[in-house]
Amino acid sequence: MADEILALDEELIQTYCSETGLPEGRAKGERGRTIGQLRSFAALVEEGSWVEASIDTAIPDRTPVPKPDLRKMLVPLGPVVVFGASNFPLAYSTAGGDTAAAFAAGCPVIVKSHPMHTGTGELVASAIIKASEKTNMPNGVFSNLNSSGIEVGVELVKHPGVKAVGFTGSIRGGRALFDLASQREEPIPVFAEMGSVNPVVVLPKALEERGGSLAQTYAGSITLGTGQFCTKPGLLLGIKSEKLNHFIGELSNEIVKIEPSCMLHPNIIGAYEGNKQKAVSQSDLQVVADYESDVEPNFARQTVTTVEGKTFLENSTLHQEVFGPYSIVVQCEDVDQLQQIIAGLEGQLTGTIIAGEDELHQYKGIISALQNRVGRIIYNGVPTGVDVCPSMHHGGPYPSSTDSRFSAVGIHSIKRWARPISYQDWPDSLLPMELQNSNPLEISRLVNNEQTHREI
Amino acid sequence: MADEILALDEELIQTYCSETGLPEGRAKGERGRTIGQLRSFAALVEEGSWVEASIDTAIPDRTPVPKPDLRKMLVPLGPVVVFGASNFPLAYSTAGGDTAAAFAAGCPVIVKSHPMHTGTGELVASAIIKASEKTNMPNGVFSNLNSSGIEVGVELVKHPGVKAVGFTGSIRGGRALFDLASQREEPIPVFAEMGSVNPVVVLPKALEERGGSLAQTYAGSITLGTGQFCTKPGLLLGIKSEKLNHFIGELSNEIVKIEPSCMLHPNIIGAYEGNKQKAVSQSDLQVVADYESDVEPNFARQTVTTVEGKTFLENSTLHQEVFGPYSIVVQCEDVDQLQQIIAGLEGQLTGTIIAGEDELHQYKGIISALQNRVGRIIYNGVPTGVDVCPSMHHGGPYPSSTDSRFSAVGIHSIKRWARPISYQDWPDSLLPMELQNSNPLEISRLVNNEQTHREI
Repeated sequence: MADEILALDEELIQTYCSETGLPEGRAKGERGRTIGQLRSFAALVEEGSWVEASIDTAIPDRTPVPKPDLRKMLVPLGPVVVFGASNFPLAYSTAGGDTAAAFAAGCPVIVKSHPMHTGTGELVASAIIKASEKTNMPNGVFSNLNSSGIEVGVELVKHPGVKAVGFTGSIRGGRALFDLASQREEPIPVFAEMGSVNPVVVLPKALEERGGSLAQTYAGSITLGTGQFCTKPGLLLGIKSEKLNHFIGELSNEIVKIEPSCMLHPNIIGAYEGNKQKAVSQSDLQVVADYESDVEPNFARQTVTTVEGKTFLENSTLHQEVFGPYSIVVQCEDVDQLQQIIAGLEGQLTGTIIAGEDELHQYKGIISALQNRVGRIIYNGVPTGVDVCPSMHHGGPYPSSTDSRFSAVGIHSIKRWARPISYQDWPDSLLPMELQNSNPLEISRLVNNEQTHREI
Repeated sequence: MADEILALDEELIQTYCSETGLPEGRAKGERGRTIGQLRSFAALVEEGSWVEASIDTAIPDRTPVPKPDLRKMLVPLGPVVVFGASNFPLAYSTAGGDTAAAFAAGCPVIVKSHPMHTGTGELVASAIIKASEKTNMPNGVFSNLNSSGIEVGVELVKHPGVKAVGFTGSIRGGRALFDLASQREEPIPVFAEMGSVNPVVVLPKALEERGGSLAQTYAGSITLGTGQFCTKPGLLLGIKSEKLNHFIGELSNEIVKIEPSCMLHPNIIGAYEGNKQKAVSQSDLQVVADYESDVEPNFARQTVTTVEGKTFLENSTLHQEVFGPYSIVVQCEDVDQLQQIIAGLEGQLTGTIIAGEDELHQYKGIISALQNRVGRIIYNGVPTGVDVCPSMHHGGPYPSSTDSRFSAVGIHSIKRWARPISYQDWPDSLLPMELQNSNPLEISRLVNNEQTHREI
């Protein structure tokens, strides 16, 4: 499949850029990521151990009852519906992470293409169909559906033949699908990766040691991809001080220096302006940076605001994600208030702590509160940039995802689409190869409590 | 905790027997199973590798961007509410599988005790509290709540502090909790192990070779524990023939020879009689065995019925579980109808195929259809008897469970109560021990894609 997508070549990149307004570099980067994901899953399936094969051989003379032979492995859930993301037309859409993981698990996939980039979607779909024909996959292993309304998606999620759903997008959209799926006669799992403000805690010594460079780094992270990443830092938390004031000033100076860029779609900039307006109209909130020069149509003006900890605690509107280049800096009274704010946050994809040398060990309560709210915790970095590797977890407590036990990124995301089945006293020749005595696939298996590649 | 439960000694066994009407042998067997489960989970936690630690070390000179250090492991979800089962006062109640797995994952547990055996529940709860004091666990790590109505359970599932729910019981009860949990502002996972009729496919050659012994074996399996096991074979499927007729006759003769036994509670026998009445009153159904002599109060009369495949296909009432010593034999027209019936069944905990020598390979369509509907598939055995070992999967497609991706039995059932978290560029000394460079717990970890016990 990766080869067929690469073969689309310039046509894909041009369609992507014209549909999204994103630069060619971003298109190529995302294509690279998509290819990388597809190849990781291909390697995973090729190697074969992902099925978590487990074998407990019989003990016929066990008392009071003989122990049967039991063998377990993961099998596909069935047809998966994937809703493409608006902000990743390649890596989290038609042949993106959800699709790649579902195919790897052995599930047929029905993509509901995102209406903002249907051309890109069609091109990728044609590559998938070409690959499925080449590999003699059964007809129906993949479908790509287009629709600008919600009806097609609703029907798909309600269809009795559909066994699981993957979604990347807004809390409202993901929750609606989750509700539909939960209300079915046969409820099905929905893995929705949704909103997050990605709190960043900036500790005093860090501000003292490198406030200036932090301001510059964070101005970049907030505006990266016009703030259209699910890991954009939308909430900075610090303890009130001269240094924090100074940092806010520097962040404001840095962020307005950045050239505004184009958002993915008029709908998205509309939502950005609306949500930002709602945020800045809250009382006791101060706008500290706002790009004021004229911008081209669909270009987003970056904005930074600040509030007191008490105001933030009392007004949950300020906790909501503003998807785009916007961030709010909360000035907490003290460490206790900081911890209280963190503990009261909704679930988040990421949480970051920026600390000075040897400072972190004094803030164990803060660390613990933050760990409790997030799927990934970062030290002295930025949350943007989701490295695809086995140790990456991309998900988190609700509402950052609908099920904190699964990841949307990395090889372990395959577990969303598979279920275990046990074979009891099953004849060796009729067992799946993964569970046969001779271990013909040479995979790693748990055999009588020992992880091994050996045959039985 | 196991020691404290064992120390309850005769008092526990006597309370159990007087509350349930079950014989002492069953009480002691179930106590043994409960202790075994607790010790398995204690060993799992002691060994430590269950957290699925995964480490990808940094690549600072990677282009175009440096690769951060990422480390991932499972952490507890938070407080878990456990609803005890009516039919397993020890092994699936207060200190049963759900509780043991949740404690092992690091979650506090709140048990909603089953009203049919509150005395047994209180005794076990006192043992848990004693154990938690002895091991200096924080106050609140365990609570046991009693109530005969549904209000306490409803409040628990709706409470924002509760993060997951375990349940064993009826489809109606499990679904009600699932619906409550899904409708919360923050939805939480519910693992409910619910109803199942556990279809058994009896193939022609098996009937020919050993119809008599099969009839005897299945008469025993249907009536085992007065039919109060979630794996009781409630549905036998065969292809119409003289041999099948003969088998039905023998099964009927054998089952009425068995002495009726006492059900767990007047409510349960009431439900049994009601559900059985509903089943046998369906048209075109024939009762072939019905224990007719007088029985003591609360003792259940075993019953076997039979219908044509066509009748079964058309009447979904006949597909419903009758909890107790009842089973229905479906006489299919041919293999196609048999396969059609299997494909149309609801999700099941188990499915069994009884086949003669070399017969199974002719029925690949049947095997495949059955695998698709069940969590465990058994060859030439009975579904009753759930061996506790890593390769046992106890769960299955809805409605046998609310999430086919998780098991209610065995060490892997811990995964219901844990979620991954990633640490990015985190200082070694502040990492959990499972992820530190020196691997102080000496656990198995995935390090840069290699599973190893080595330090970094």
